[in-house]
Parts: sequence; C-alpha cells; structure tokens
Amino acid sequence: ISLRSLGVELHCRCIQTESKPIGRHIQKVELIPTNSHCEDTEIIATLKKTGQEVCLDPEAPWVKRMIARIIANRKR
Amino acid sequence: ISLRSLGVELHCRCIQTESKPIGRHIQKVELIPTNSHCEDTEIIATLKKTGQEVCLDPEAPWVKRMIARIIANRKR
Repeated sequence: ISLRSLGVELHCRCIQTESKPIGRHIQKVELIPTNSHCEDTEIIATLKKTGQEVCLDPEAPWVKRMIARIIANRKR
Repeated sequence: ISLRSLGVELHCRCIQTESKPIGRHIQKVELIPTNSHCEDTEIIATLKKTGQEVCLDPEAPWVKRMIARIIANRKR
C-alpha cells in the first residue's frame, strides 16, 4: 500500500495559477491544505465537459467569492 | 469516452453528513456545486492516513470555518 494509492501527493500539484475568473463551468473544486510535501494551500478546479484541472490562487478575491457561492448554493 | 471517465457523477455522492467537527486530519476537501444529477451542494473531506471520505454539511458553521481556515493558510 503506497502513499500515492491513498491519494497522498509527494509534491505540490500546482506550478502556476489561473488569474482570470473561470466562471460557472466548474464540476468540482478541491482544497488541499498545506502539508509536509507542499507549503502552499492548493485550490484546483475541475472544469465541466473537458475535465481540465485549473489551479486557482487562494488569495484571489474572485476565488474566495466563487467558493462562498458554491457553499451557499444549498438545496432549493 | 464515458461521462464517468470525466469524473462526472450521475447521482449525489453523499447519503448523510458528519455532524461533529473532524479536526485537522484533512488531506483535501472537495466542493461539488449543485448540478443536474444532484440538487445538493456536496462537500467531501478526505482524511489523512486512512483516505476515508467524509461528507460534510455545507450549512454547518464549523464546516464554513474549516474551509475559510484552509484558504487563509497561505504560504508562510
């Protein structure tokens, strides 16, 4: 049983972050806290349709707003 | 190429949510916006070590605080 099989990354996944807002075509957003293998918090959005993964800047106001919007959009 | 291969879920992933705070042993948190297959926003934490997935309540104040804490914990 390897660390990787548990989904543990041994390095940062993001090299650079997307600066412009990516809008509403988001399938999911992953938040990865700082850990022993990566000293940055990583936020990775997966886009609908393509499944493309886009790294986002945790300090960007639009990223914080987008996450707050996702969480607030509860059962209608 | 299947929808599932793109990571598209065809149903909600969470049946019930964990009510008590799960603390600091979080490897990652996934935020899944409402979509045509699931009318609930889903928040799924993956625990360190075990890799266990735990569904969290988007309306729970401790969940919102935990997410805010992850995002704010930027490069030191």
